[in-house]
Amino acid sequence: MTQDITRRTIWMHPDGSGTVQVLDQRSLPHEIKAQTLTNVTEVVAAIQSMVVRGAPLIGATAAYGVYFACTEAAQQADPTAYLLDAFERLRQSRPTAVNLFWALARMQEAIATTSDFSQKADIALATAHQIVEEDVELCRMIGVYGLPIIEQISAAKNGAPVQILTHCNAGRLGCIEWGTISSPIYQAHQKGINVHVWVDETRPRNQGGLTAWELGQAGVPHTVIVDNAGGHLMQHGMVDMVLVGTDRTTRTGDVANKIGTYLKALAAFDNHIPFYVALPSTTIDWNLRDGLQEIPIEARSPDEVRYISGWDGSQIRQVLLTPKDSAALNYGFDVTPARLVTALVTERGVCAANEEGLLGLFPERKIGG
Amino acid sequence: MTQDITRRTIWMHPDGSGTVQVLDQRSLPHEIKAQTLTNVTEVVAAIQSMVVRGAPLIGATAAYGVYFACTEAAQQADPTAYLLDAFERLRQSRPTAVNLFWALARMQEAIATTSDFSQKADIALATAHQIVEEDVELCRMIGVYGLPIIEQISAAKNGAPVQILTHCNAGRLGCIEWGTISSPIYQAHQKGINVHVWVDETRPRNQGGLTAWELGQAGVPHTVIVDNAGGHLMQHGMVDMVLVGTDRTTRTGDVANKIGTYLKALAAFDNHIPFYVALPSTTIDWNLRDGLQEIPIEARSPDEVRYISGWDGSQIRQVLLTPKDSAALNYGFDVTPARLVTALVTERGVCAANEEGLLGLFPERKIGG
Repeated sequence: MTQDITRRTIWMHPDGSGTVQVLDQRSLPHEIKAQTLTNVTEVVAAIQSMVVRGAPLIGATAAYGVYFACTEAAQQADPTAYLLDAFERLRQSRPTAVNLFWALARMQEAIATTSDFSQKADIALATAHQIVEEDVELCRMIGVYGLPIIEQISAAKNGAPVQILTHCNAGRLGCIEWGTISSPIYQAHQKGINVHVWVDETRPRNQGGLTAWELGQAGVPHTVIVDNAGGHLMQHGMVDMVLVGTDRTTRTGDVANKIGTYLKALAAFDNHIPFYVALPSTTIDWNLRDGLQEIPIEARSPDEVRYISGWDGSQIRQVLLTPKDSAALNYGFDVTPARLVTALVTERGVCAANEEGLLGLFPERKIGG
Repeated sequence: MTQDITRRTIWMHPDGSGTVQVLDQRSLPHEIKAQTLTNVTEVVAAIQSMVVRGAPLIGATAAYGVYFACTEAAQQADPTAYLLDAFERLRQSRPTAVNLFWALARMQEAIATTSDFSQKADIALATAHQIVEEDVELCRMIGVYGLPIIEQISAAKNGAPVQILTHCNAGRLGCIEWGTISSPIYQAHQKGINVHVWVDETRPRNQGGLTAWELGQAGVPHTVIVDNAGGHLMQHGMVDMVLVGTDRTTRTGDVANKIGTYLKALAAFDNHIPFYVALPSTTIDWNLRDGLQEIPIEARSPDEVRYISGWDGSQIRQVLLTPKDSAALNYGFDVTPARLVTALVTERGVCAANEEGLLGLFPERKIGG
């Protein structure tokens, strides 16, 4: 694996076979392995088993699944039935990832323009490529607009390292390239600005390990901390800014992100440290006004709290952390109210975390406007 | 092991041999094992290797170590030199535990009243017992004063479970019996009041597993959560009070407790949930006025962040969580400013977290008063 910080999470196999390769994220950060996907069944399995994760990447992977489905359908007695079934299998691979449904709808629309299955396959491949390139561009632009924030802090500190705290993985591993929060960081690093990232380990699934891995690959200085540590670092002047992603953002600027984000926002507010949220506008739910009341929060398996996986020296192994009879509860996300968010960093610019700010960048969303 | 919630963490061996037994806390919550201590060398090893942990319990264990040392000294050519050396070994077993030095100083003073080593041994045993009983009584009284807080919430909720969130282990396992935060909880449970405890797992050392284990032994309903989850629970009305311990408390009511406590205090404050700190007055440092500036915070091994231990089905095993090359930083404690603390629960009563409140309960600490 190279140190190229713009390397992708999904790519066409370099052997020209027309198959797709993805980074196997189940084994990260302990083993670096690519997995080759050659048919729709393998795509469904890769999404289900979390070989790929992160909403944009799931959507893109499913898009290539539609390409495989079209190719396979052309060889069936009833190609239309086969294709419909393939869409259904892809749709059910991760029932909660919004980008998955969005990508599948877009693919369906694109291939509906012809009834020839060979042509459908060509269109599907081109559209999948397009979805990938669009995500790359969205993330790149978030970096373009986020970079000046880091530059200003760097200037104010006379070039001393800009200390950025992040939570979960909103880096390139959840996207195709650049990532959301990582895009401004990578662009700053490329420009020679001193940055250092405090990486929350992000229990229970320890996505901080993924963030640490990709920052390490990119040569960005970073230090892993437990989720409990950020408040102390902020109290002692060791954090200049917090930068996190979001899974869903309301029209009013409330953000739902990985559980624990709210606690860091409170600590940032208490210590007068700016708290930024980086997001592609695709995560904005323009129908919602009250994040705490309206954003549904997924309750996941208690076993993610009770057990943890790590590298035992030769393989990834799961160990039990709690008493075997103790109950556990596992919410996946929490909501940070807009009042705690300094600004939102989008692909169209930086704005205040409120309706006026967002509509300034996205005027087409004004109701009756 | 019985379900007796007042069972102790250290006790004289029931075989009458004059040896001491302790609960081996290294294997909890996965295996319940007692360890027998028969001489001063074994006591030093038990403290060093964290067979016993928690300031009061470390002090008590060391006190029994002095008893063994006196017995052993009587059989040496130079008993005084032997005893001095034993004190030094005990003193160096855990260099930062304040109760250890306090207990050793008290033992030294007690046995200085005679030059006969057999009498010294008798006095040492009696004084060790006394140290143990005093800690039990301190903890019991914290429960007596903390109980009404739980009772009032229970009454206001018409008997629905009082939802208590805690962080780390300030239960009986760190003490002899009752514990500090657990004493009001156990006393409420014994009185038939419905309580349910949200147990923060408390990375990096997962003392939440100890808390869950002892609550389970006592039959107290509880649920383990990751440290990230408390804010979300508080936002959604699922927490009635926070109750934590403290390792050091300033004259002005600032509290240093396990890293992450400050984040929970912020969330409690933001959601108008009372935040109580239970403490024996021995943790108050009457010389300090500014916790953030004056309380030194221990930086522990980064490997406690990088690795975690758990039960693999047949043994306790350590696994790596982070990329092997990533740096990690590991502060053991953070400071919660008094402004976020609703009240302090001590063995003399409940008071506001400020100098006036503390001096009201401990008037002998008034300077020049």
